[in-house]
Amino acid sequence: MAAKQVRKASKRLTLVLASNLRNYRREKQLSQESLAELCGLHRTYVGSVERGERNVTLSSLEVLARSLGVSVPQLLTPRSDDDE
Amino acid sequence: MAAKQVRKASKRLTLVLASNLRNYRREKQLSQESLAELCGLHRTYVGSVERGERNVTLSSLEVLARSLGVSVPQLLTPRSDDDE
Repeated sequence: MAAKQVRKASKRLTLVLASNLRNYRREKQLSQESLAELCGLHRTYVGSVERGERNVTLSSLEVLARSLGVSVPQLLTPRSDDDE
Repeated sequence: MAAKQVRKASKRLTLVLASNLRNYRREKQLSQESLAELCGLHRTYVGSVERGERNVTLSSLEVLARSLGVSVPQLLTPRSDDDE
């Protein structure tokens, strides 16, 4: 069997999301409050995602991505300008 | 403001995931049971994701993707061979 047991998620993807969310939001010149309002989410929820504290669901990912004008795969892919 | 209110998630991404999960799993010649075992998830959970019934979390997406040897963005991107 090619696949091997992978029972635990890493923190890596959560941190990619956190970083991308913050960067895309800032590029749109949105505050956490404004983004939260657009998404129908709470401001503290957006903050906690940006701190990598949340195990977000696919539906939240989708709403966040669409509010920022990006796709969910984009939101989960490390950007080359992360070191800016 | 460029972004507009997007409060509701669509079903589209859930269905892309459902289709990709099933196709990648079959390519690996894994049953739902075997994939579930690799992931430490329940067989019925894998089945419900493949039927598009679940709002999966990022950590479950990661475990599923890694067990199948693909990335999470791959798992969420429509494949050109979906009509096979």
